[in-house]
Amino acid sequence: MGKTHCDISMSLDGFITGPDARVGNPLGDDDGRLHDWMFAMATGEGAEVLDEAYARTGAILMGRRMFDVGVEPWGDPPPFQRPVFVLTHEERDPMPMQGGTTYHFVTDGVDAAHELATAAAGERDVGIWGGADVMRQYLKAGLLDELQIHLVPILLGEGVRLFEELGRERIELKCIRTIETPAATHLRFQVLR
Amino acid sequence: MGKTHCDISMSLDGFITGPDARVGNPLGDDDGRLHDWMFAMATGEGAEVLDEAYARTGAILMGRRMFDVGVEPWGDPPPFQRPVFVLTHEERDPMPMQGGTTYHFVTDGVDAAHELATAAAGERDVGIWGGADVMRQYLKAGLLDELQIHLVPILLGEGVRLFEELGRERIELKCIRTIETPAATHLRFQVLR
Repeated sequence: MGKTHCDISMSLDGFITGPDARVGNPLGDDDGRLHDWMFAMATGEGAEVLDEAYARTGAILMGRRMFDVGVEPWGDPPPFQRPVFVLTHEERDPMPMQGGTTYHFVTDGVDAAHELATAAAGERDVGIWGGADVMRQYLKAGLLDELQIHLVPILLGEGVRLFEELGRERIELKCIRTIETPAATHLRFQVLR
Repeated sequence: MGKTHCDISMSLDGFITGPDARVGNPLGDDDGRLHDWMFAMATGEGAEVLDEAYARTGAILMGRRMFDVGVEPWGDPPPFQRPVFVLTHEERDPMPMQGGTTYHFVTDGVDAAHELATAAAGERDVGIWGGADVMRQYLKAGLLDELQIHLVPILLGEGVRLFEELGRERIELKCIRTIETPAATHLRFQVLR
């Protein structure tokens, strides 16, 4: 069985989207700046970090909101090429897409979604790829083993914060790898229990 | 003339103190966790990072609140060993302390304080060592050249955020150095104008 990791891009001031993220404006008003390291600027080590994240991940878990804002821009085939489990309150049939992605909708909570994704991932990891609230739910549930933050050297000033409403129960992590690339610093943390 | 840099310890979730920082509880309810890398755990590279920050800094600038909560625990001699300029609204005579620290109180604003500190620093840097509001004032005023964040792998959940109320005018930075030590990841950014 693999691990459960979260991979997410964050501005230095802690935002994972610019202001006003919504359907039709999936990344908020940030023009994709937080994800440049994956696309326009993805060369050399940046591309390797991205390839590695895909290679280790057997199934992806995401929140309903991320799915709603993302499904149109991701298109068909979506970039995932593996099963995607969407945490939602709405019963819905699976959506098989081209290229190996199938969106599965899970209505019975974080534990059930994690079990399904773990089974689908096989020997590989479950990747929690957003949004912030879903990452936090798995972190608080003690189900997150690793957190890789792609720290982008920009101050956005506003947007959706990755770390918010965590409460006062401290969580210790350990930085287990740092890779510096021109467009981001890739920090991998182990969650200590 | 040196640069103006900010050197500050921050939790992974963006806090520079734990909850309830005030006089008598200068670091908030964090038991000094954010500053372990400087003290208990300062060995090898961690100690080098701290020594370097002191060596490059000819004068220190800080906010009134940081001074108020810090002056008692810092004691006499304080750890600074160089002139310290405190931004305040209250006229007050300089306080010469043992070991080379003198606290100067500047009442005519961020520019004036910066000029005084720059003159006192000579060839070396002005170090803006906190708090968050003072760092942000210099950042917004375009007077900050570099920002070194000692990123501590803990989620505090609450406290004083370093980056808040920055508004929507984006600020681009460039990561110019990363040092990973057991207790913190030391990220140095150049502020791009």
